[in-house]
Amino acid sequence: MASNSFGTLFRITTFGESHGKAIGVVVDGCPAGLEISESDINQELALRAPGKNPYTSPRKETDVAELLSGVFEGRTTGAPICILIRNQDYDSSKYAPLKNIYRPGHANFTYLEKYGIFDHRGSGRASARETACRVAAGAVARKLLHHFHIEVLAYLKQMGDVEASVDVSNLAELRQATYQDAVYCPDANTSSAMCAQLERLKIEGDSVGGVVEFVALSVPAGLGDPIYEKLEAKLASAMLSLPASKGFEIGSGFNASVMSGSAHNDTFISKNDRVQTSSNYAGGTLGGISTGMPLVGRVAFKPASSIKKSQQTLDLQGNQQEFTLPEGSRHDPCVAIRAVPVVEAMTLLVLADALLLNRSARL
Amino acid sequence: MASNSFGTLFRITTFGESHGKAIGVVVDGCPAGLEISESDINQELALRAPGKNPYTSPRKETDVAELLSGVFEGRTTGAPICILIRNQDYDSSKYAPLKNIYRPGHANFTYLEKYGIFDHRGSGRASARETACRVAAGAVARKLLHHFHIEVLAYLKQMGDVEASVDVSNLAELRQATYQDAVYCPDANTSSAMCAQLERLKIEGDSVGGVVEFVALSVPAGLGDPIYEKLEAKLASAMLSLPASKGFEIGSGFNASVMSGSAHNDTFISKNDRVQTSSNYAGGTLGGISTGMPLVGRVAFKPASSIKKSQQTLDLQGNQQEFTLPEGSRHDPCVAIRAVPVVEAMTLLVLADALLLNRSARL
Amino acid sequence: MASNSFGTLFRITTFGESHGKAIGVVVDGCPAGLEISESDINQELALRAPGKNPYTSPRKETDVAELLSGVFEGRTTGAPICILIRNQDYDSSKYAPLKNIYRPGHANFTYLEKYGIFDHRGSGRASARETACRVAAGAVARKLLHHFHIEVLAYLKQMGDVEASVDVSNLAELRQATYQDAVYCPDANTSSAMCAQLERLKIEGDSVGGVVEFVALSVPAGLGDPIYEKLEAKLASAMLSLPASKGFEIGSGFNASVMSGSAHNDTFISKNDRVQTSSNYAGGTLGGISTGMPLVGRVAFKPASSIKKSQQTLDLQGNQQEFTLPEGSRHDPCVAIRAVPVVEAMTLLVLADALLLNRSARL
Amino acid sequence: MASNSFGTLFRITTFGESHGKAIGVVVDGCPAGLEISESDINQELALRAPGKNPYTSPRKETDVAELLSGVFEGRTTGAPICILIRNQDYDSSKYAPLKNIYRPGHANFTYLEKYGIFDHRGSGRASARETACRVAAGAVARKLLHHFHIEVLAYLKQMGDVEASVDVSNLAELRQATYQDAVYCPDANTSSAMCAQLERLKIEGDSVGGVVEFVALSVPAGLGDPIYEKLEAKLASAMLSLPASKGFEIGSGFNASVMSGSAHNDTFISKNDRVQTSSNYAGGTLGGISTGMPLVGRVAFKPASSIKKSQQTLDLQGNQQEFTLPEGSRHDPCVAIRAVPVVEAMTLLVLADALLLNRSARL
Repeated sequence: MASNSFGTLFRITTFGESHGKAIGVVVDGCPAGLEISESDINQELALRAPGKNPYTSPRKETDVAELLSGVFEGRTTGAPICILIRNQDYDSSKYAPLKNIYRPGHANFTYLEKYGIFDHRGSGRASARETACRVAAGAVARKLLHHFHIEVLAYLKQMGDVEASVDVSNLAELRQATYQDAVYCPDANTSSAMCAQLERLKIEGDSVGGVVEFVALSVPAGLGDPIYEKLEAKLASAMLSLPASKGFEIGSGFNASVMSGSAHNDTFISKNDRVQTSSNYAGGTLGGISTGMPLVGRVAFKPASSIKKSQQTLDLQGNQQEFTLPEGSRHDPCVAIRAVPVVEAMTLLVLADALLLNRSARL
Repeated sequence: MASNSFGTLFRITTFGESHGKAIGVVVDGCPAGLEISESDINQELALRAPGKNPYTSPRKETDVAELLSGVFEGRTTGAPICILIRNQDYDSSKYAPLKNIYRPGHANFTYLEKYGIFDHRGSGRASARETACRVAAGAVARKLLHHFHIEVLAYLKQMGDVEASVDVSNLAELRQATYQDAVYCPDANTSSAMCAQLERLKIEGDSVGGVVEFVALSVPAGLGDPIYEKLEAKLASAMLSLPASKGFEIGSGFNASVMSGSAHNDTFISKNDRVQTSSNYAGGTLGGISTGMPLVGRVAFKPASSIKKSQQTLDLQGNQQEFTLPEGSRHDPCVAIRAVPVVEAMTLLVLADALLLNRSARL
Repeated sequence: MASNSFGTLFRITTFGESHGKAIGVVVDGCPAGLEISESDINQELALRAPGKNPYTSPRKETDVAELLSGVFEGRTTGAPICILIRNQDYDSSKYAPLKNIYRPGHANFTYLEKYGIFDHRGSGRASARETACRVAAGAVARKLLHHFHIEVLAYLKQMGDVEASVDVSNLAELRQATYQDAVYCPDANTSSAMCAQLERLKIEGDSVGGVVEFVALSVPAGLGDPIYEKLEAKLASAMLSLPASKGFEIGSGFNASVMSGSAHNDTFISKNDRVQTSSNYAGGTLGGISTGMPLVGRVAFKPASSIKKSQQTLDLQGNQQEFTLPEGSRHDPCVAIRAVPVVEAMTLLVLADALLLNRSARL
Repeated sequence: MASNSFGTLFRITTFGESHGKAIGVVVDGCPAGLEISESDINQELALRAPGKNPYTSPRKETDVAELLSGVFEGRTTGAPICILIRNQDYDSSKYAPLKNIYRPGHANFTYLEKYGIFDHRGSGRASARETACRVAAGAVARKLLHHFHIEVLAYLKQMGDVEASVDVSNLAELRQATYQDAVYCPDANTSSAMCAQLERLKIEGDSVGGVVEFVALSVPAGLGDPIYEKLEAKLASAMLSLPASKGFEIGSGFNASVMSGSAHNDTFISKNDRVQTSSNYAGGTLGGISTGMPLVGRVAFKPASSIKKSQQTLDLQGNQQEFTLPEGSRHDPCVAIRAVPVVEAMTLLVLADALLLNRSARL
């Protein structure tokens, strides 16, 4: 069903299970002539790697990307780029007890309903491990966008009820602050409060939700298409395709519902010789097409469903069971943290595709 | 760019401008054998029609659908179904003064940036008039879903800060209450408060945002695909493709970000001989695939950008201008009202497509 | 199944049955800024019109295209272009006796097997009438290609065993000769022999097959994609999607199978300051990508299955029946004639799409 | 541009260059529950392997497929299936002299025109090596078709002017005869004449073209779609996407152009309780949809452009050059031989996709 692909002209296809031999991605449609190397990709993968801070899943694995195709003498050739990541450091045996249980908040129930078969080892294809492939592909997209001076960043905006205040005028600085922070929150004070919250959750064996914000600067006006392929529709689809995401908003988002039109309309002004708006409630698009103002949106993530607390559930035979995670199971108290580079990758992928698609808008 | 199409197997393509000769939709991929008539479609179009209540745009037009193809002896044949709606009752002359102005919150700026040309008459393709085609196509999708006993409804959940309390257990009753209500809110008390708010806005010449909720019952488990074609990703894309929409959420949505995992995980229980969950924070999907529980989500709409209050803006030459809507211009104080049947239509279209796609999941 | 669409970026969707209310096409993805009018389209439709010469189906209908959308002030806007053609002059009653018969060489058997329902009036969707929509869309594609100085022509190359000798160096002259000829064959001597053959077939109540050749000049090098979207693969798909087509070849085609490599390899030479080849057995592509040399290929058409001779067949109940076309039924002794402008249209559509797709090949 | 993918619901994406690290394919959309193993795939790859007989390219490589994903406990899970084939036994150094030459009949000219960069090592992506991925994916498709009792075979029908006579009533026997034969021609007498021809070509340092025929039995009636996705259109696209292919025909093919309708129309008869036709000039489809009769078609291949004879050409600076293949270069006197299993694979892939697509034709 081509359901493992994303994008139209700049199109990715991912494959692989959490505890299979490897995961990987094929990037098709990247223009020829772009400089890229394995280390460019591995740098981005390192950001998403588990085990980076005390609060995320303690899988010690270091993902190493192998660039199998599509690059010749350091440049893309227009051919499909396959990036392969071998799986290491997994012990599937501890997942055996989970084989016969409908895990609360997990997808094994729906996979079994749909396919009649489920690779329960590390949740197989349903694992967030698939998102490493998005990050790898995002590294290619970033190279393309960089060529056109477009910058993209995501960061943790909110964890539980703790919310950061972030100024997006300088993305380079913000990026540094973000990826140096333990929870990918560029606002140091908020980050401390978030870390305190995580310590508490660790003790309780519970988890909490969060919100990731993404920003893109120097996006030219004109990207995105008017009706079903609106830029915000593609971003929404990209973000709701992420594991554990429950909501998406652009610009004012849900807050728009309580605003008046006179307050919400961004006023067109002339600034630096181009048409801009004095405010940016729109979040960078009008009618599905980019305005040239900063592209800003947010993605809501649910609390991780894998918690250490005991829960009631059913086994596959329909009997009620008390369910507790096996000893030594990995556990992310807040999946939104590790989602940060993935939200960034999805923004990159959407913009790369929109950039190429826009080339056929005019004579 | 095929950007006027939506769906994979059950696929629609719309065309037409607000003040052009006609608008219309081609539905391709509808299975053969479905009973459908022009009046089935016209009934649904009537719900979306402007001029239905005192608060929506006073265009008096009655949309009449002409079923041009794909139906023979009252049944679909598997051939594409074209539904044509001729435009009537428009006076483009009053739009002439708008030709040289960047309208605040409107898409004429971005269309001009992208295409270098803009059909300013009634906003052309950027008009919400295109959504009538979605409703017409939704009528076909509803027939298909009805065959499989799937029911879909949307209603106004919130206007400004007034929020309705709605029980979704009986959709037939709820549908009646919704479409009899002036603002498509099934909760009579809330509806009164909303109407009062609209009266105030009319006087002020201002507008307000809102939230539309959609519900689908009897959706079988298994619809949607694991990774990029998650059911919620398709819904998100569908909803963010609507004019004026700024956000989407499924189940707990943004509220999930402040919840703990132990509270958010829906407990699997056995009920009526099938696996269900005791709560439904998931909103009907897990891992992108439907659970069989009610599918529930919400769409945020911004306040209409066309307001009667005077606003500052630029003309196409970059000069600052005071902008006031021409006398007699249409004006919706809350576009979320008329979005209700359109959100419903998009839900129908997503589910029809997912239903057909799911047929190839197993041997 | 989106099976009524063709193309990726320059994409058409057709609808309508032979004896339904109308047929039509939506062209999505045409760049903004192209001058086009209804009369441009009607001129091309006239070429395909039935009743033009004594040998094609005597349907007297004059197709009149109505341009419903996508054009504003004489130019394309980037919005979808819908072209509608109302059906006239049909009398479905004479098709009633055909309802219960599997017509030899016709598609009603397979439609019934697939869909369980068949619009037998004029063969419904299976009628070659659908190809008028391709010609209408081709008129838009021609405008786009014309902007880039690409010229396209098709003509009748062969009827039965009578084959024309055609020099393709001057397309403008060749076009004139082709469309002034009764059987669309630019070689006057061959045309006479073809006409004599048609007179004989008319008397016999039989039909004959034919071959249509297409040529495109000034195609820039670089169109088409290396692997599955080779230019010749798209042309092959385009041509085999035509009713009654049985074969496709490019350049040397089937004749290549009896040639040696040393004879078949076209020698690269420098001519007029660009790289050309001294011969053109390749037919204008290498490795799926255009070379800049003339694009040349051929399409084989079977003899029309509707003949006046009596034939044996089955009725829908499986009983053997003697089948004779009802009095006054239309009858084309050689469908390849009317296929000429349609082959031309498909070539135009493939090239328009390839032209837009090629814009994303490089930085 | 997604140009490295083929198929809609059963969709493959290939990657990799001839002398890169690896080639591979991702099969997306294969239904869950199908038994498959690495050895199933390797068996099919062995058929295509170079070095199998004295007449094909002497690359000694044994392709070994690694099944990276999508299979759990021996069965497909519905997740994408990645098959990886590492490249071995290549010495790119001998390709260095080819870097600055436009090779006659080769694609390096068009790749350079399109992308501005060409991986000349073994022709990179333009190499026929990519077809190994098609064969690997075809092995998965065969498993699916086998489940529905559909059988597919291809064989060398013609080499130069030597043509085989083949009876397709017993595919199992025919398959054995085909794959035991040195040139994949099931007709022993013809095979000898073909081999003699190859000996002569080897001495002359020249090559010859050929025709491959494909047959599918037990294809149910109803596969394929009426207009642009006709079964024969997909097959045509599949076959013209093969390196060196110049033509495609189905059933009577180009021969139809010299036949009369009364001779060409296949008569419907009742046989074994189902509707069949007494002859099969149609080749198994009517109106783009399978009839249930044997699906039969042919693909024409040009003579290999890599020959040992010296040829004139240009270098990249536009200077005329005498070109001779470097010593030890691989050389296939007739590429149609090795194309046999690839034509078979493409037939399998088209049918697998059509089978899944057909599931949404009816309620």
